[in-house]
Amino acid sequence: MNAEIITIGDELLLGQVIDTNSAWMGLQLADIGISVARRTAIGDSESAIISAIAEARTRCNLIFLTGGLGPTRDDITKKTLCTYFNCGLRRDEEVMRHLEAIFEKRGRKMLEINMQQADMPEKCSTLFNAVGTAPGMRFEEGEFTLISVPGVPSEMMHILSTHVFGWLPEKYKLPAIVHKTLLTAGIPESLLSEKLTRVEDQLPVNFKLAYLPAFNSIRLRLTGIGKSKDVVEKELMPILETIKSICAENLVADYDTDMAGALAQKLLQGNTTISLAESCTGGYIANALIKQAGISAVMKGAIVSYSNEIKHNELGVPQEIFTTEGAVSESCAKAMVEGILRKFNTDVAISTTGIAGPGGATEDKPVGLVYIGVANKQQTIVKRFVFNGNREQFMQRTSTAALQMLLQLL
Amino acid sequence: MNAEIITIGDELLLGQVIDTNSAWMGLQLADIGISVARRTAIGDSESAIISAIAEARTRCNLIFLTGGLGPTRDDITKKTLCTYFNCGLRRDEEVMRHLEAIFEKRGRKMLEINMQQADMPEKCSTLFNAVGTAPGMRFEEGEFTLISVPGVPSEMMHILSTHVFGWLPEKYKLPAIVHKTLLTAGIPESLLSEKLTRVEDQLPVNFKLAYLPAFNSIRLRLTGIGKSKDVVEKELMPILETIKSICAENLVADYDTDMAGALAQKLLQGNTTISLAESCTGGYIANALIKQAGISAVMKGAIVSYSNEIKHNELGVPQEIFTTEGAVSESCAKAMVEGILRKFNTDVAISTTGIAGPGGATEDKPVGLVYIGVANKQQTIVKRFVFNGNREQFMQRTSTAALQMLLQLL
Repeated sequence: MNAEIITIGDELLLGQVIDTNSAWMGLQLADIGISVARRTAIGDSESAIISAIAEARTRCNLIFLTGGLGPTRDDITKKTLCTYFNCGLRRDEEVMRHLEAIFEKRGRKMLEINMQQADMPEKCSTLFNAVGTAPGMRFEEGEFTLISVPGVPSEMMHILSTHVFGWLPEKYKLPAIVHKTLLTAGIPESLLSEKLTRVEDQLPVNFKLAYLPAFNSIRLRLTGIGKSKDVVEKELMPILETIKSICAENLVADYDTDMAGALAQKLLQGNTTISLAESCTGGYIANALIKQAGISAVMKGAIVSYSNEIKHNELGVPQEIFTTEGAVSESCAKAMVEGILRKFNTDVAISTTGIAGPGGATEDKPVGLVYIGVANKQQTIVKRFVFNGNREQFMQRTSTAALQMLLQLL
Repeated sequence: MNAEIITIGDELLLGQVIDTNSAWMGLQLADIGISVARRTAIGDSESAIISAIAEARTRCNLIFLTGGLGPTRDDITKKTLCTYFNCGLRRDEEVMRHLEAIFEKRGRKMLEINMQQADMPEKCSTLFNAVGTAPGMRFEEGEFTLISVPGVPSEMMHILSTHVFGWLPEKYKLPAIVHKTLLTAGIPESLLSEKLTRVEDQLPVNFKLAYLPAFNSIRLRLTGIGKSKDVVEKELMPILETIKSICAENLVADYDTDMAGALAQKLLQGNTTISLAESCTGGYIANALIKQAGISAVMKGAIVSYSNEIKHNELGVPQEIFTTEGAVSESCAKAMVEGILRKFNTDVAISTTGIAGPGGATEDKPVGLVYIGVANKQQTIVKRFVFNGNREQFMQRTSTAALQMLLQLL
């Protein structure tokens, strides 16, 4: 089944906001067997919204709208949908109570424009928004469905996950889809694909194997389609076991996770405490770990040692390292990781020191150079990497490589 | 003048790649007075490409295509453009020499599919690609122009900057566009919009005011169109001044930036050094600051004191605070911020301690509760907040509030 996404907002066209919603929706919809065939971004204009809906409707039966549901005057999606579906507004009392509770909690007075967020088009079903003030809407006309949600990513995700992704397969009698995901690391996509050629050639027609590469790691997703979940799972499990045994050396996790999730699970299982000494990544890895629920049981903390003064005073990096090899060096990464392990008295530790760019490069130290250290009480390992890409990609790649090095040490 | 962008690639629809090209193009085009009126993402399919072009052409005279120009079989944009413009291919000798040089440098033999990258549609002008193998194309039919560039961001940026953005204003005799952006904080969108009702009502028809909200802060963008930059700026400035005076209390910056950018600029201007003691935000704020270019001149570092042991040992938080008021308390935030200021010997510091959730709440301490401390050598300020939302939103909101508190202290 095909769907289209229409994103509404001048800020998207102007380029002041990057649309990450559509990618998330594309991935989620694929999970339930719906393909996004087209995506259209338009401005906050009634005629543009109405013509985009009308055009999309000639091509498919399912349209998602994001954005334009805020309380201010430039947000016109709700009013436009009333025009398109030819209906008025009614006040939704449940939404009203929710808004009142939010404003009471914030200790603020509700204005008329805030109350208007509880006015819903008569022809829609309200998709209750527990995490924000703008509800979503579902319009149905026979086989046709239009879903409208706010553009704020967390609210969009909440509403679709809670009220839509479960509802769609029922409404459209979608076939059952089962996904199983494995996480591998330390093997390039081309080599992994070569190893799995036989398995791929022998896959039943209702199965598909996808490679989802992310810096240094690859998620392998096996997808089966069939009449019921039980039937598909029965067929899927032996194929999955074959893939697992072929990838055994590089298998990091046999569930859908990323490197930080896999490491957190391993640390929690072994009750292994961790600390970090981050220079160039400036808290990026600590932050990736802290996003994992329950991590406080094993994560003691981190020192972001951005200046050499802090590297010396807090982590005990000898001053002479800065004057001889420099702060971006194997010796510095080693001193940092051993320093934090000792100071925070943890079982394992990570350190990073490098040149994130765009400035800071020297003749023999290019932008993208980074030394990563991992240690436990028995040993320290330091590796040198040079990563391509911008500052953000540098952070991601360094983080993934560091997490993988520690996973290997464990 | 309006333009449309058509992005080509299955990976965009599937959500495996986030489209950052369109945002960049939108910003660049706005600067020369071209508004992107619509953006359409489609898959690698000839019929989808042709119908998207034909539809866009009914609405505007300028179309940008990105993607689908690689050497492999799933890249069909060039072939499709030959079909659409009804022409054949000719070999471009300059491109051929460029390709030969690239392959010689890489020490690789050119295959037939590589040489085909030098075959250009007869009706296009070649847009030479000095940084990659796929050239761009410019097709013109009277007032209509179609520009096709590769989807690789660096190549797309290079080709458009070198061959297109300078050419367009000449070809189309474009009007001038001026944008001015203000950053406000600590005022909700609805209240801000109410304050600005009068201004909005009185805006000249060639002006527009947009609200771009992000956790706790709102960017206000005023846009004017006219014959020349000078004329528009003259008309714009008094309106901007009126808006600035109405928002004075909440105005953080009168240029286009975010909270971290505004704070970084202020710190750098005053050569004011900073350190952070983060508990619940776990490096989030340090990371937001570290993304600002040049920040290393003033940012000494941070301690992520996730455990009480680290709060006590490293920041000197008295043990009795944990047993009486607890780690999530005003006293703890105060001890943390004063501890890090002293230890890292900086001019200012930030501390956070709170409950990010989903676990960790107690009867009198709900999820979302956070104490934020800011300090300089003269004074310490601690404020209590309760933020709605998930873990990620909690981090963002705490970060924005902390940055704002420090901006106020400065």
